[in-house]
Amino acid sequence: MNTVVVGGGVIGLAAAWRARRAGLAVTVIDPAPGSKASHVSGGMLPAVNDQMYDQENLLRLCLASRELYPSFVAELEEFAPAGFRNDGVLDAAFDEDALGSLDRQQSFQESLGIRTERLTAAEVGALQPAFAPVLGGLLSPDDGAVDPRVLTAALITAVEALGGTVIRRAATRVADHAVVLDNGEAVAFDRLVLAAGCWTHRVDGLPQGAIPEIRPVKGQIVRLHSDPPLLAVTARALSKGSSLYLVPRLDGELVVGATYEERGYDETVTADGTSGLLARAAAVMPGVGALRFAEVSAGLRPGSPDDLPLIGPTTVPDVYLASGHFRMGVQLAPVTAEAIAAHLTDATPPAVTAPFTPLRLA
Amino acid sequence: MNTVVVGGGVIGLAAAWRARRAGLAVTVIDPAPGSKASHVSGGMLPAVNDQMYDQENLLRLCLASRELYPSFVAELEEFAPAGFRNDGVLDAAFDEDALGSLDRQQSFQESLGIRTERLTAAEVGALQPAFAPVLGGLLSPDDGAVDPRVLTAALITAVEALGGTVIRRAATRVADHAVVLDNGEAVAFDRLVLAAGCWTHRVDGLPQGAIPEIRPVKGQIVRLHSDPPLLAVTARALSKGSSLYLVPRLDGELVVGATYEERGYDETVTADGTSGLLARAAAVMPGVGALRFAEVSAGLRPGSPDDLPLIGPTTVPDVYLASGHFRMGVQLAPVTAEAIAAHLTDATPPAVTAPFTPLRLA
Repeated sequence: MNTVVVGGGVIGLAAAWRARRAGLAVTVIDPAPGSKASHVSGGMLPAVNDQMYDQENLLRLCLASRELYPSFVAELEEFAPAGFRNDGVLDAAFDEDALGSLDRQQSFQESLGIRTERLTAAEVGALQPAFAPVLGGLLSPDDGAVDPRVLTAALITAVEALGGTVIRRAATRVADHAVVLDNGEAVAFDRLVLAAGCWTHRVDGLPQGAIPEIRPVKGQIVRLHSDPPLLAVTARALSKGSSLYLVPRLDGELVVGATYEERGYDETVTADGTSGLLARAAAVMPGVGALRFAEVSAGLRPGSPDDLPLIGPTTVPDVYLASGHFRMGVQLAPVTAEAIAAHLTDATPPAVTAPFTPLRLA
Repeated sequence: MNTVVVGGGVIGLAAAWRARRAGLAVTVIDPAPGSKASHVSGGMLPAVNDQMYDQENLLRLCLASRELYPSFVAELEEFAPAGFRNDGVLDAAFDEDALGSLDRQQSFQESLGIRTERLTAAEVGALQPAFAPVLGGLLSPDDGAVDPRVLTAALITAVEALGGTVIRRAATRVADHAVVLDNGEAVAFDRLVLAAGCWTHRVDGLPQGAIPEIRPVKGQIVRLHSDPPLLAVTARALSKGSSLYLVPRLDGELVVGATYEERGYDETVTADGTSGLLARAAAVMPGVGALRFAEVSAGLRPGSPDDLPLIGPTTVPDVYLASGHFRMGVQLAPVTAEAIAAHLTDATPPAVTAPFTPLRLA
């Protein structure tokens, strides 16, 4: 069985790796694997997020992926470091509203069997001395983050080490069970996985409307750097009704994100995006101003028509989708990859992925 | 006569070019010509600046260089574009204090024979529609800016086209009328020009104290981009007692500068430096937030012990200095280059450069 995956972001690469591991011949096609939304993402892996409170199916999908992450990483690290840490995620409340939201989050997580530790203001200060004064915090000690740049590099290494192929060219169209590249060459497939984020529906040659339109939702994100790292653990700073993601890496990188902008296929980093993130970071970490400004980048999150992932078969025989993960591609990579590998091998995919069949939109 | 110039910034390159043109064999030594302070500089060429009001010698030096600029550029453009524009510098007053300073500037410039046009608030708005409301402006229609990146590239081209040599290696020490490179090779000279900015005194092998210490004064600067350009002409935005440099390029780049920081040899760009410049820019140009954030960089301006340039012979026979130009290296390159070329050929240097002899500090 010859499988072609169009799209070498974290979703496509993870699916390719699991498919190859399941014994399929695998070819990934991407002009620059790991260079788009996966390259920009902060890679935070929080236990829960706002969307999960009232979306039961999404909640179960996320919990399944969270459960898979440690073994997914452990297997991947037989090939290369994956950049994973699960030494805690701290939700820090900088105002009364945020403090109230921690109560709700704590009972929600406990109802799901996800460990939490409620921290006083002083305890937050002790754990994360770089923070401005807070009202309190909630530590999820078993959660964390992954460095998506390290993760995608490891996935490429693993795919190639197992004999899979990564073709660094653009896919232009599908024709006769083959993907035609930008140099005119055709790569034949038995089954095809489209995992090209917000470019997924842009591959020509499939029946009109067969692939739902995936809209780009721009996110700008800033990377700062200090030695030693400014923050001890991954955090969300909650204030004024919003949440600022702060993802420290062991090498001193501090990712600050992110904006949400609906502006089409625009990957421009702007003065406003940059200054807005820096101002929000300075409001919660007074010492952040002295940190080295390392990078600002913009990625396009893939938003499906109902803002939920698309995982599984389409109405076109032998064509599968793994896209539309919006803000949760890195988080949902393990469960998505398991599901796609199962579909491709005619095995039973994880039941939690069933509601995310692309056929729901057909 | 074999001349070696240590330092391939705008000062060293300009001196080398004029020396070669005057018939000398010339070698420039720099590990990465045009990559330090000259690479970061905005290249604004204002008619006058604050330092010139009460420093008569500096004023005369600046005026001489301003006078030379058009012909310097015209000659250089026989080799390559120089990135020069003299379509005006606008000083825009955003508060009452700034408005008052325009009166003083106007009479000062007129006393020097430098053309000015006083603009009403409406006229400033018409000329520079991207500005927030101003109280008034002063246009110096014959002044402008140069793109230092284009200028240094043109100077390298000119030096090499005329048979001069640019050695892309670091100079480590001076020994027996030769400069020793980091690969151990020695480059012999009859006369030596030290023009390595704040690294000038760090070349070993010269008598203790012969070269004054040049301290680094860090400047961070932001480059934004839009198409079409946001600003029509080069400008200084005057408000709250400070002046923000805004240098638009014809290709849509907008340089916003700069910070002044005394922190030693630290070229780190920081979160504070970046956000501070963006905030100041947004205060005077409301639409700036939508511009692409292209770059933030930091350069080290060379500050001499008395903050004035060092141009001419030292107490060491055959060793000359062209350094310490602080914020005015790009502006003073033509007159400095003329003076150094004259010294090297035993001709008479421009009289305005006499007060800047390094011997004043000996």
